Amino acid sequence: MTSALLTDFYELTMMQGYYLEHHDSRAVFDMFYRNNPFQGGYTIFTGIEEILDKLEDLRFSAEDIAYLESLNLFDKGFLDYLRTYRFHGDVYAFDEGTPAFPGEPLIRIESDLMDAQLIESMLLNTINFQTLIATKASRMVQATKGHGNIMEFGLRRAQGENGAHAASRASFIGGTKSTSNTFAGKLYGIPVSGTMAHSWIMSYPSEVEAFRKFAEIYPDNAILLIDTYDTLGSGIDAAITVGLEQKAKGKKIGVRIDSGDLSYLTKEIRARLDAAGLEDAIICVSNDITEDIIKSLISDGAPIDSWGIGTHLVTGGSQASLNGVYKLSAKEVDGVFQPCLKVSNSYEKTTNPGIKQVYRFFDRSGGALADLITLEDEKLEEGMNYTFYHPFSTADFFVMKTSRYACFKPLLSKKMEDGRRISPKRDLKEIQSESARLLASFDRSYKRQINPHIYKVSLSEKLRTLKTELLVSARVKEEEEKAR
Amino acid sequence: MTSALLTDFYELTMMQGYYLEHHDSRAVFDMFYRNNPFQGGYTIFTGIEEILDKLEDLRFSAEDIAYLESLNLFDKGFLDYLRTYRFHGDVYAFDEGTPAFPGEPLIRIESDLMDAQLIESMLLNTINFQTLIATKASRMVQATKGHGNIMEFGLRRAQGENGAHAASRASFIGGTKSTSNTFAGKLYGIPVSGTMAHSWIMSYPSEVEAFRKFAEIYPDNAILLIDTYDTLGSGIDAAITVGLEQKAKGKKIGVRIDSGDLSYLTKEIRARLDAAGLEDAIICVSNDITEDIIKSLISDGAPIDSWGIGTHLVTGGSQASLNGVYKLSAKEVDGVFQPCLKVSNSYEKTTNPGIKQVYRFFDRSGGALADLITLEDEKLEEGMNYTFYHPFSTADFFVMKTSRYACFKPLLSKKMEDGRRISPKRDLKEIQSESARLLASFDRSYKRQINPHIYKVSLSEKLRTLKTELLVSARVKEEEEKAR
Repeated sequence: MTSALLTDFYELTMMQGYYLEHHDSRAVFDMFYRNNPFQGGYTIFTGIEEILDKLEDLRFSAEDIAYLESLNLFDKGFLDYLRTYRFHGDVYAFDEGTPAFPGEPLIRIESDLMDAQLIESMLLNTINFQTLIATKASRMVQATKGHGNIMEFGLRRAQGENGAHAASRASFIGGTKSTSNTFAGKLYGIPVSGTMAHSWIMSYPSEVEAFRKFAEIYPDNAILLIDTYDTLGSGIDAAITVGLEQKAKGKKIGVRIDSGDLSYLTKEIRARLDAAGLEDAIICVSNDITEDIIKSLISDGAPIDSWGIGTHLVTGGSQASLNGVYKLSAKEVDGVFQPCLKVSNSYEKTTNPGIKQVYRFFDRSGGALADLITLEDEKLEEGMNYTFYHPFSTADFFVMKTSRYACFKPLLSKKMEDGRRISPKRDLKEIQSESARLLASFDRSYKRQINPHIYKVSLSEKLRTLKTELLVSARVKEEEEKAR
Repeated sequence: MTSALLTDFYELTMMQGYYLEHHDSRAVFDMFYRNNPFQGGYTIFTGIEEILDKLEDLRFSAEDIAYLESLNLFDKGFLDYLRTYRFHGDVYAFDEGTPAFPGEPLIRIESDLMDAQLIESMLLNTINFQTLIATKASRMVQATKGHGNIMEFGLRRAQGENGAHAASRASFIGGTKSTSNTFAGKLYGIPVSGTMAHSWIMSYPSEVEAFRKFAEIYPDNAILLIDTYDTLGSGIDAAITVGLEQKAKGKKIGVRIDSGDLSYLTKEIRARLDAAGLEDAIICVSNDITEDIIKSLISDGAPIDSWGIGTHLVTGGSQASLNGVYKLSAKEVDGVFQPCLKVSNSYEKTTNPGIKQVYRFFDRSGGALADLITLEDEKLEEGMNYTFYHPFSTADFFVMKTSRYACFKPLLSKKMEDGRRISPKRDLKEIQSESARLLASFDRSYKRQINPHIYKVSLSEKLRTLKTELLVSARVKEEEEKAR
């Protein structure tokens, strides 16, 4: 089971409020984020599979109830209700691994208010982090331009155990090849990999001996760490000695460099290995590698076959969180759903009201053109022109003509009904490859690392009209109250 | 049990190497970090209590072994050894909550090489993250200058579940007052707190009604969120209406502001509350608060009683990891410990060899003066002068005279012997208050948020001599090899 205490305390106090007030009509919440991380142009939506698992298992244990009771703030009737609580809402979401953009409802929860409120913190905790890391991985993979695979090495710098495991999984969805985190390997079936530590070498009298022993035990995985004492001195010399011994046995080696100028060193090392006849020895680099360092090494032509990346991959580096939020978009009043919006002094923070769907439009060669947020009850038909309204700027719009688009696809699909998962569990490798395929449908200008072309996410005419009407009536109400 | 798979894969491949080679003499590893985070002057060492718990419980389950077996890389004898594995090393560490500085061995592990190697990743995962967050919390508390308490609100932006729970605990050690994370509240006994979400207000026909209902249910905890529609309009009006109703019942209220210019708004709100006779209503602020925002609001004189801080507290914000490392410092050869060092091309990355202790020197008023790293077998006596050598710069030293210091205290103490905890479990609130007491012993110049005075961490004469000798002999060996 997943403890339902994995929630902000105010969710529970509000939930008790709804309970005591019998104020628990159906409600609809959207999860969305406002800005792309890392100054980039997209995110890779990640975490929904874990959320579905957690929602099925969400319970208050007897111990959880005893804890809440000890706070002397909760009613006995409410606590009894929690004892048999299970999530019974409907969940609509993007498929895991889908490229996503600011303002799009990525998850839509329909349930009663108590239920939908309780899960907010868990849902945001899961999606914000995992989407951040899958996006970071995707960007790092893009930055390599196909030169070498990325091994995720983040366990020791990740934010807690689960911060490490979830990051390993999310990185893999974003395109990394393996993880050093053995537990995540077991849990998710991610390939595990690793080389050796300086301590291995220091524990032997010489580098040659340390390398030789390792290659004897792991003839197919001998990546030798050559920077313990002197990379271009004893390090590469010992690696070549052992590399030639292994070559005589029909085996390959590799070297890892974990310090120093990686551009200069990889070129020197490549030349030394080639000159020794070890052209097939691979070069792996590590040491606090960031997106910028990858780009710089790639543009320098550094001969790198494998990247070991930890810190900046599994934490997001300079941006350690995604600002995803969860907002009420409709509530049932007298048996009918009424759209709601959260007004804000800053126009771009005003939410999109109502029960919504997102359509992605594609051109004839399968390229993604733009996304349209509509109301769920709008039924789009192919062969029609659609006006795309800017989400904030009232006068901005364009017409998506039938001459331009070939088809569109809805991005939100029903994953869970009445608290039971109805979408099949997906294989992680399939999510990874499908995500890569989807990302490939976007023009590279949207994937530029800095100052990317902004992918358009627009409102349908019906949604835009509804939003304007609600905003105006909120303003009128506010002015009336002021006048009183 | 804690799964021993919570380790980087190379720890296991190296461990098997040591096993197969019967290369498993005793070894000593130090955990230390190289740079203070956040451009600051110190860290709050955190995570050791959790590590002791984990080390006692560290096991390979049958499922773990089956997973390793499935990788076709591990020897049957080795896997059998893992089946009954338990950690049996000795652990020396700083007390949790102790202010710590770069280069100091914060944890010293003495065990056989296999054992000491296996736990590296788990140990670093725990300490790097928790120390980062306790330090961040400590800095934020310092930044408030005593104006208002900090409530940690980070669950929704934290890096995974455990990233959230561990951050709640670490924040508390660093000085926060409560957490919104209910699970962490239960797990660690941290006080839980929270207010209300915009959805609570949006679910009612009006703000007044929403506030009134909340105050009825929670008369002692009614912090009303006033920025759903118009903070200085309907928001504060409704709060005052309900505040006066509560006052008539002898109850206080509070307000929370989650958007807009917090300096301007808090001053206006304070004036409005005071004018209405609600002088005792507290003002709570939230919305992506950073250290810099705290400083700016404090210097503006914003009347803030309570800070709700999430993202930047629980992730570290712009710095999401501490660069702690774990290095071999001694190994047994023929029954005798020999000091080791990892040479590096950059002098400041060369490790300090040998089995070490750290002493903190205090003046007569209890103020911390400087720390001295010594070899464990040096026995310091009070009433003697000691020469403090700079850890890297060979010509820098000063003499700590008996006229200057009053006493010194060793900072590393034995926490675990042969895998069994020998230090008593500590109460979290006691760790928090002891940490604050210890931090107070440092001059404020060391705690300046940016460009702090550098607290001196020096080497004893004996350690410095050993380090120099080992460096020279490594260099000589390297030159000899080159000459061959």
